[in-house]
Order: sequence, then C-alpha cells, then structure tokens
Amino acid sequence: MPTPNDPGEPPALAGGATGPSQLRPLVDTVLGALSQGAAARGGPIPAGGPQAVAERLRAQATPVLPANGTGAQDALRTLVRAVTEGSADPAEPYCAAHLHCPPLALAVAADLAASALNPSMDSWDQAPAATALEAETTAAFAALVYPDLPQPACLVTTGGSESNQLGLLLARERARATGVPAVHIVCGDNAHHSVHRAAWLLGLPEPRTLPTHDGTLRPATVDRALAELRGPALVIATAGTTDTGAIDPLPGIAEVTTAHGAELHIDASYGGPLLFSKHHRAQLSGLQSATSVGIDLHKLGWQPIAAGLLAVPDTTALRPLATNADYLNAHDDIEAGFPDLLGRSLRTTRRPDILKIAVTLRALGRDGLAQLIDRVCQQAQRLADLVEAHPGLTLYARPTITTVLFRPSHATDAELAAIRRALVTSGTAVLGRAHAAGRLWLKATLLNPTTEPADFTALLDLVARTARETRTGRPPSNGQEPSTGQDPPGGNAPRNGQ
Amino acid sequence: MPTPNDPGEPPALAGGATGPSQLRPLVDTVLGALSQGAAARGGPIPAGGPQAVAERLRAQATPVLPANGTGAQDALRTLVRAVTEGSADPAEPYCAAHLHCPPLALAVAADLAASALNPSMDSWDQAPAATALEAETTAAFAALVYPDLPQPACLVTTGGSESNQLGLLLARERARATGVPAVHIVCGDNAHHSVHRAAWLLGLPEPRTLPTHDGTLRPATVDRALAELRGPALVIATAGTTDTGAIDPLPGIAEVTTAHGAELHIDASYGGPLLFSKHHRAQLSGLQSATSVGIDLHKLGWQPIAAGLLAVPDTTALRPLATNADYLNAHDDIEAGFPDLLGRSLRTTRRPDILKIAVTLRALGRDGLAQLIDRVCQQAQRLADLVEAHPGLTLYARPTITTVLFRPSHATDAELAAIRRALVTSGTAVLGRAHAAGRLWLKATLLNPTTEPADFTALLDLVARTARETRTGRPPSNGQEPSTGQDPPGGNAPRNGQ
Repeated sequence: MPTPNDPGEPPALAGGATGPSQLRPLVDTVLGALSQGAAARGGPIPAGGPQAVAERLRAQATPVLPANGTGAQDALRTLVRAVTEGSADPAEPYCAAHLHCPPLALAVAADLAASALNPSMDSWDQAPAATALEAETTAAFAALVYPDLPQPACLVTTGGSESNQLGLLLARERARATGVPAVHIVCGDNAHHSVHRAAWLLGLPEPRTLPTHDGTLRPATVDRALAELRGPALVIATAGTTDTGAIDPLPGIAEVTTAHGAELHIDASYGGPLLFSKHHRAQLSGLQSATSVGIDLHKLGWQPIAAGLLAVPDTTALRPLATNADYLNAHDDIEAGFPDLLGRSLRTTRRPDILKIAVTLRALGRDGLAQLIDRVCQQAQRLADLVEAHPGLTLYARPTITTVLFRPSHATDAELAAIRRALVTSGTAVLGRAHAAGRLWLKATLLNPTTEPADFTALLDLVARTARETRTGRPPSNGQEPSTGQDPPGGNAPRNGQ
Repeated sequence: MPTPNDPGEPPALAGGATGPSQLRPLVDTVLGALSQGAAARGGPIPAGGPQAVAERLRAQATPVLPANGTGAQDALRTLVRAVTEGSADPAEPYCAAHLHCPPLALAVAADLAASALNPSMDSWDQAPAATALEAETTAAFAALVYPDLPQPACLVTTGGSESNQLGLLLARERARATGVPAVHIVCGDNAHHSVHRAAWLLGLPEPRTLPTHDGTLRPATVDRALAELRGPALVIATAGTTDTGAIDPLPGIAEVTTAHGAELHIDASYGGPLLFSKHHRAQLSGLQSATSVGIDLHKLGWQPIAAGLLAVPDTTALRPLATNADYLNAHDDIEAGFPDLLGRSLRTTRRPDILKIAVTLRALGRDGLAQLIDRVCQQAQRLADLVEAHPGLTLYARPTITTVLFRPSHATDAELAAIRRALVTSGTAVLGRAHAAGRLWLKATLLNPTTEPADFTALLDLVARTARETRTGRPPSNGQEPSTGQDPPGGNAPRNGQ
C-alpha cells in the first residue's frame, strides 16, 4: 500500500551525517525493483514494440504528477520496476545494437556517491575535493592522449556530441583571434551527425563533406579539398565510426592537414580507449597530432552515461572558454587561491562524472581496462568468423574495433530493416543497422565482456531464422515496400516465398 | 588491503539478472565511505582552503591511473571517502552559498537505477520505457507551465545554461526562418552569465544589456530598448536571479514584449518550482506568455544534478532541433512506429535524468513539493527577521524567494570578501557573495528544508564574530587591499582596530 507523506516531516536528505542511513532502505528497494523488473522482462528488451511498451508504462506510472504523493517506497518500487521491465539492457548478450555499453557495477556504485554528495563543478566552494580529483584525473587522461607534451589538458563533457561541438568552437575562436570570422569544417561522409549539428549551432558554414572509400576518409581526398579552400580549416577525422567502427588513416590525414596549415579534430568517441591496450593502441597512431580529441568512456569504457572527455595539447587551447561570473569566480577570490572552474565547461552547474571514472581507473588500472578492451575486440573477430562460416549470412568486412556488420544473404534492404524491427519487437534481440557499400546491414556493436561464444552462435541462428520467417510472412506483392537502398547486382535472389 | 583484479574474470556488470546482487556489496561500501567521510569532515566544508584540500586529495587518490588496479572495494572505499571528506555538503545547515541543493534521498536512490540500467535517450531501442516515462513526465511539466494551451512541450536539459542556450537557439532559428540571419537578444544586467555565453556560442551579436532598478528589469526600460531595435528580438527575463533571487515583473515585460512583436524567454531556473505552491505561484504570473521557460529541479526541486527543463508553448516550437542520423532514426523505422528522439536534445547519448524527477513527483506529489518550497521560503523570511534584529548586521532587502543578502554593518567590501573566505577556509560555513546596490553582500541561499531556526541564529553570530576577528587581524595599512567595490557614504566606519 502506498504510504502518504507525513505533511509535518520533510522527506530525508541524502547528505549530512544521517544521509547514508536514510539512503540504505531506499537503495534496498531500488535493488529489489531492478531484480524484479529484469525478471519480468526476461530478455534484452521488452516485447511488443513502442506502442505496447508505452501503454504498459502509462498504466504503471500515471498519474506522473499526483496532487498527493504516494511516498518514497511506493514511488521507487513502482517506477524503477516499470522502467527496468521496459529497458533495453546491454548486459544481456543479445542486446548489441549501439555504442551503448553495460556499465560496470563499481562505476554505478561510484555514481551513487556523486548523486548523494551532489558536488557542482562550477565553483570550488561547491566541490572542493571533486575539483581536485577532476584536475588529477583529467591530467592523467590528457597525458595518455598526448604523452610527449608538457601541459596537455582535458575537459569532461556529456559525450562525443559535446566534444565535437567544443572542438569546432575552439577552432572557430582560434580563427576569430586572427580576424577571420569563420573556419571551414572539412569532414568525411563517415563523420558523426553531431559534427554537422555543431557547425549549425555555432553559426559556421555547412561542413564540406567528402566522400569516403571503404568508410574511411583518404588523405588524398582531404589534400584535394584543402587545396581548394582559403582561410582557416578544421579537418574532422574519426577513430571508430558509428556505422562500422572504422578508423580513418590518422597519420596520413594529420600529414596533409599539417601541410596545408589546417587543424585536426579527431572524434575518437568510440575508438579512443584503445589507447589503454598495448595490442590495439597502434591503431590510434597519429592521435597526438590533433588539436583536439574527443573520447567517450560511456562507450568502450563501461561507464554509465555520461563520461565524455575532450583532450587538447596544451592548457592554453582552452582559453576561449574562460568566462567570469562574479558570484562564482570573483577576481579577488581567484587571487586568494580559489580555483576558477567556469572555463572548464559551457555548463555552469555540473555533475562530478569524474568520480565514477576515477574509481574505474583505480579499480581496474590500465591493464584491467586493456583486458576488457582486448576481450571485446576478440569477441568481434570471433563473431565475424561465425558469420563467415554461416551458410545463410554474409559478412560486410572484418571488424576494426568491435562492430560487426552482416546480413542474411538473400534479404533485400527493406526485408533487413523489417528483420531488425521483428527482432526488437518480439523482445528477442536488439541489433542496429548501418548503410555500407550501398546496402543496409545488421550491426552488432559488441561491448559486453561477459558474452560467451555460444551466445553468438545462438544469436546468428536467431537472425537467420527470423530472416526466413520474415520472408515467409511478407505480403506477396513487394512493389509497395519502402526501400532504404538499392539491391546491388549480387542481391537479386528471389524475393518471394523462399 | 587492496585486492588486485583477477585477470581471468571481468569485473561485474550492473545490469542483467545478476547485476543487483553484484551491486549490493559495492553500494554497502559506498554508504560506509559516505558515513566515514562525513564524520571525518565534521562540518559543511573541509578546513584548510583549496591548497590543503587538493594536497590531501592527491595524497589519498594518486596515482589516479595505476598500471594495475586495486580492485573495486579499495577504489570505492578510498575515493568515495576522500571526495566525501572533501565535499561542501548542502545538507549541512551552514552550507548555504549557492543554488546548490541538498538532494532528497529518494531522488538519489532513483538515480542509482538510472546509472545501473543506463538507458540512452537518443533512440527507442536503447530506452524503451524511459522514453515513455520522459514523454509522460515532460508533458505534465509543460502543462504546469502552460496550463491553458493544448500542446505544450518540454525538453530535459543539463540546467539553466543549456536551457538558456536552447531558448536563444530556437529564437535564432525562428528569425532565420523569416530570412533574418540573427535575432537581437535583450536582457537586464541581472541576467545569468550563460545568456551572454549562449549568444557568443550561437554567433549572435552581444546581448543588449539593460540597467536594472533594484535588481529587476523594468518594463519601461525594455519598452525603450525595443523601440530602438529593428528586426526580431528576444527579451530575456529572470524569475529568480542568482544574486538576490529577484523576479522580474513578468506581466509587464510580457506586455511590452508583445506590443513590440518581440519574443520572451524566461529564465526561471531558480524560481520556476514556485509553480507548485499555491502560496507562491502568483509571483510567476506572466510565465505562460513566454516563448520558452527554463526551470531547474536541481535548485528548488531537491534533485541531484542534472535536472533541467525547458518548456515551450507548443511542440512545433521544437522543430528546429529535428535532425536525422540513419542509425538512430531511419525514416522507415519512424514510419513503423519507432519514436524519433534525436530532436529532444543537442546531446546524442543522454542519461535518463527524468527517472529521479518522476520518482520525486510521484513520491511527494504537488502538495509535498509545495510544502518543501513553502518551508524554505518561510526560512528565508525568518533569517531576514533575525538579520534585522541583529545589532551588527545589515539586511539588503526582504527576500523574494529564498536568498538573503546581508553584511556586517561596518565591513568594507574587501573585508566582507575576506570574511567569506575565512569562513570557507576555516571549514565553518559556506556563504556566497553578491553585488547589489553598489556594495558586496554575503549571500545565504536557503535550500535545506531541515534547517532549524536555532541554526540561523548561530550562523549569524558566527558571521558577526568572524567579522570582528577579521578586522582585528587585518594588517594596519589598508592601502594595498584589493577592493571589489566602492564603499558608499554610509560605509565609512573606522577601518582599523575596531
């Protein structure tokens, strides 16, 4: 039974001397609701599709703003259970669509402390020790990206989109400092959509978008594009594309970029953590040539969202972000030794995402993270082997990081999209989709180090079976099907009743 | 003793069927470290000031990136304890500097579930039920802001800075849609610094900044400014300034803004939640005239950071944020009923901050939130009474929301700044600072509903005592003191040896 609030007594706070003991029974309720919700779901994603999930959530969660509250225990039990039951859980082996990692339990536990303490990273007197921890941890991370430089720096962001935005903003401001109002943005057609969005946000011209070869941006293509431009330019390279996990040839791009006097931002949101692995870090050779590098630890770093980082070669590169708000960083306070933190983000109030990152780095160390990374990279090779050996499936290419594209060999693009939706809607598997080489593919983005080889075998069989069922169940006429791509010459298998 | 990682076994995940049982011992460690850290601190903020706190943190936390990890238990115990010991805790009655609230235990517990489940709000197949919960909850919130409109909408943001940024961006895009490249931004000198930063970010001209009277923007001033401008204009009004908590006269500003065909963004980051209280919501009359309204629930809403919201009168107002990324919102998936979520934020990967908000709304209800708001507003009146009755202190003005400005009656501005630093550095109290009426004031921003009247009496006595000690201890020559403002005629008390 819901317990109504006692109107005389404010609900418990998470902080202070009594906070932890107040939190304990509530956390117990949350852990219980997480268990019950996961059991009720019983798979990687709830069955039924968007409409059914929304209706069930509404039945459980409304009214969302009652006049009288139902109390903490009821609200936590009801809503945490409902959201858990209706979650796509990347800790389930068949949930592998996106750069959406299953977070480590230790990072999630650390994040609880961040919420309970609630430091705000915009002034020292709201976050004394968290400020120091952020300074130490970002410095260590910057040194990982720029090992040979004396004063590299690093900001904490909400993810790759904000890191790209800041990379473009810093380039715009460097151009403005020389009297040029804008900077040319040059990227491949493999760049993340947030690059285009950032240019729009910042009032910059639409990026010059170059064709890619095999999903990577060729140095010669960049060279030709830069030769045609006048004025400052920022080239965007990608280390780990969203679609295929491809890594642009960074040393070659850095070379032509430097030759033209242009700058280089590397979106390593996905691939950046390969730096931790001695087996894989060579793939990031050239990273230290960049004027900025974005890396997400909520992708190949097993952090709960958000854990974005933007590294730059020198602290002075961050100067354009400096700002003053007398209530937060008065000049006399700065003179008296109080750190000025406003220039470390465009946000003002800011959660200490660094705490979970620091706990993870200490708990696992470089080697522990490398083991996780090596493991998921090996998994991807294994899955690619299995696809190649499967009679009904075609592999796009050997994986670069942990993304494996494949397709039922005889499916049209429209059928492939329908197969993906059928898997998701039936609650059996969550795979992504990607266009590559003129076709649509199923995408498995492997980020779960606990997945076993047997899971992959079963997943591929499920896909092949669903492909057969989708073909059998489809309407006899195919003329009205929406198509998202052309079928290449090799894809002309019979489209009916196979 | 630190336990090194077992290299053969990946560390536990937070999700899946076994996640909750893996989380339990780690959460126990965190709760223990929170207790021990708070006991070690023993006050609102660690003593010693920035240098000492940073040195202690370094001693406890380094190396931040060891080659070999120390294991989950050691990392959580060490770092959570260190950050707790070095925190400014707004649940302590003498920690009342900023719009930095003590979060409710129930909201923090809910946030644990958000981290463990790790939904990402950029596509349905990463966040099925969380998507539906966000839709329901933001719709209810939008209806609270715009009760008379059929289709108001609301986005989740990282806070007032992002809400202001989006308010300006939407106005820029409305102007562009009419063929005008920019929009004039008109604000008072009481507007948050993020308004100026947003204009810079968006490539808009520097805002036209108008003088305020008693810290509020007068309609007649706006009227005159708009009369001088040609082309689209967006006026920024504030409901709850950072410095004094003042609320601009919203109905009057809305009237002149409409008369000139201009638009109105209201930054109600602080004051917005007054909507929940029948005693206080009349102060927000005029809010529903705005083209966008930013409200933070991590201020007067007791949420852990971040819990920002941006409300608009109609869903169509959000169209400029629409964007396409085929891997997240392919057209055929949208046609098949999969919601398109990318246009709800400029972030891509996005944490479900809505879960803690929804749990809080359900647990407390409108009335429960109103009680908390009424309580802290009453506290502010009580503190103002006590200041007025205190022989050594001067009150700036009666509080509008929960911000109380006061000063030791005979202190210079430089002395006042030093008093504040002395309180913070000694670890005894965390008060803010604000310029108002040509002087510097101490600022108490009251957001802790559990603070008792006796705490206020003791806090004021502490301030008065510190003021006396600061004067006694100051060097005999005052010519070299940095001054942050002029002393008005009334402030010419003897500056030495009082």
